[in-house]
Amino acid sequence: MKTTIVAGNPKPASRTLDAAGLLARALTGSEPDHVVDVVSLGPGLLGWGDDAVASAVELVASSDLVVFASPTFKATYTGILKLFLDQFATGDGLKDVVAVPLMLGAGPAHAMAPDLLLKPVLVELGATTPAAGLYLLDSTYTTDTRIADYTERWGGVITSAATAGTESTS
Amino acid sequence: MKTTIVAGNPKPASRTLDAAGLLARALTGSEPDHVVDVVSLGPGLLGWGDDAVASAVELVASSDLVVFASPTFKATYTGILKLFLDQFATGDGLKDVVAVPLMLGAGPAHAMAPDLLLKPVLVELGATTPAAGLYLLDSTYTTDTRIADYTERWGGVITSAATAGTESTS
Amino acid sequence: MKTTIVAGNPKPASRTLDAAGLLARALTGSEPDHVVDVVSLGPGLLGWGDDAVASAVELVASSDLVVFASPTFKATYTGILKLFLDQFATGDGLKDVVAVPLMLGAGPAHAMAPDLLLKPVLVELGATTPAAGLYLLDSTYTTDTRIADYTERWGGVITSAATAGTESTS
Amino acid sequence: MKTTIVAGNPKPASRTLDAAGLLARALTGSEPDHVVDVVSLGPGLLGWGDDAVASAVELVASSDLVVFASPTFKATYTGILKLFLDQFATGDGLKDVVAVPLMLGAGPAHAMAPDLLLKPVLVELGATTPAAGLYLLDSTYTTDTRIADYTERWGGVITSAATAGTESTS
Repeated sequence: MKTTIVAGNPKPASRTLDAAGLLARALTGSEPDHVVDVVSLGPGLLGWGDDAVASAVELVASSDLVVFASPTFKATYTGILKLFLDQFATGDGLKDVVAVPLMLGAGPAHAMAPDLLLKPVLVELGATTPAAGLYLLDSTYTTDTRIADYTERWGGVITSAATAGTESTS
Repeated sequence: MKTTIVAGNPKPASRTLDAAGLLARALTGSEPDHVVDVVSLGPGLLGWGDDAVASAVELVASSDLVVFASPTFKATYTGILKLFLDQFATGDGLKDVVAVPLMLGAGPAHAMAPDLLLKPVLVELGATTPAAGLYLLDSTYTTDTRIADYTERWGGVITSAATAGTESTS
Repeated sequence: MKTTIVAGNPKPASRTLDAAGLLARALTGSEPDHVVDVVSLGPGLLGWGDDAVASAVELVASSDLVVFASPTFKATYTGILKLFLDQFATGDGLKDVVAVPLMLGAGPAHAMAPDLLLKPVLVELGATTPAAGLYLLDSTYTTDTRIADYTERWGGVITSAATAGTESTS
Repeated sequence: MKTTIVAGNPKPASRTLDAAGLLARALTGSEPDHVVDVVSLGPGLLGWGDDAVASAVELVASSDLVVFASPTFKATYTGILKLFLDQFATGDGLKDVVAVPLMLGAGPAHAMAPDLLLKPVLVELGATTPAAGLYLLDSTYTTDTRIADYTERWGGVITSAATAGTESTS
């Protein structure tokens, strides 16, 4: 099972990226195979045809399980994450990919954003999204039990779906 | 695999119910095991503790696969469907249930409602929702290819998740 | 300026109704002219053509300013409120009505629901919705400053719109 | 009344920009005072502190009426528009600005996106959003009656709110 994390934070090596890694490890028991820190792709994100962007898209599209992570900007995912998602094909850009929407925020008020706002974009790209999205507080995600609780509740559903996808496409 | 259809149309024996049955048959290859035509539950829906409502809730909660179907009223699901969903426990009322959101409308303008509006309620109840929602035109769903196309695209994902749930809880 | 409050709580004389009254008073400086406690309309809500329901719809539709209030059930407005809203005409049922979406919840996690979920239904009915929605904690709304803060931030915008509507239709 | 149009299309001088101009002219009877074609701001959008970006933000924030226009990418607004919106202050970046969400798409399926997805971002920035959003078909917006119909239905509400804002801040 090939696992990738995608972090859409305008700051490189962000807590968003860190939290996505923690979640991937909790869900799969091992390090993610690939990391896409979207901001590192640079201005090529603003157009089409950039090689590094195309490689990152291909990497994500060929994964079995992907955590899509974003800080909360203006009560939703970031522009930079959406720039990257805009590069995928509608309908099947994430076909056979099990996607987990993850968002981090400073307070609890935006906890609905992963399911109401980020997940529908992933669905539009054709992803399989069996589980609820996850919302973390950026100040406590390393010490609270939210990732552990989420993994206990949804881990089996997610890995089962990701494994099923692996079998069906092999 | 126990399959149930739920139709939230204020009119009994509606096209909503019919379409839910067609979708369940397309996904599973057989008749749904149970049918909940919400309107038949009557005024007991307006309070708590009604026996017939409680039985219907239990039936749905113990199913492996449920199609939740609604006509489009005011650009979203109906009040009567939400009355029924309000009877389930938050977080785990639909745990281990694979739920498919289905909506019917007179025109194409509300095609985003199943994923943006109905699915999040099912997720809040703890349902597993691996696939995109489905939106049908109420005038052509018996003759167009939308149910067939949906089944080809998402049928494997849905039945695989419903079967996995069966195994994990047996 | 004719002001009405609508509360969609399955329990009569709820905190939802109380909070709607407090908000209306804060916005206008006086008691609301009319109160619709939806649950009091009873089973007539489940069909069409009930006289009491029709009167309540007419009352709301002819108001200048309406607070639509709901507790948070399953991360969104209640089924009983939606039953009532389903009785209005699409597109112009709330034409020339300035509508304020208000929701109460036990915790802060659902603070996005008034703007993402309740407001779009009011817009579909043709309401004018100039301001952000308001989300209150049901345990502290009588003692915290949220209603006062909201009124300071949005009161002028709301009453200006409601007054403009009054002039344009007189 | 100072009117500005903002177009968030990765292609400069797009139909998105053209449609925003048509809508602004229909609503106000004159050319927009300012035009922000977001893509022209370039890579400065990816960070913070760019002078051209800051000037565009200030221009928009000091307007009375702004049309925010986007093509539909992945069933919602574009990443490039969100990059620009991420530059505004949360809560009051668009205070006293009357904002109109406009989206263009190839087909009718995404007609709910302006109200469900774009408008909430504008509200989070503090904008006044009295009217329904507008969705146009990119192939027919110059010949169909949608802009005219929208202006007839909502023009008075929008310009009344924009004028009220002008008076209250003068």
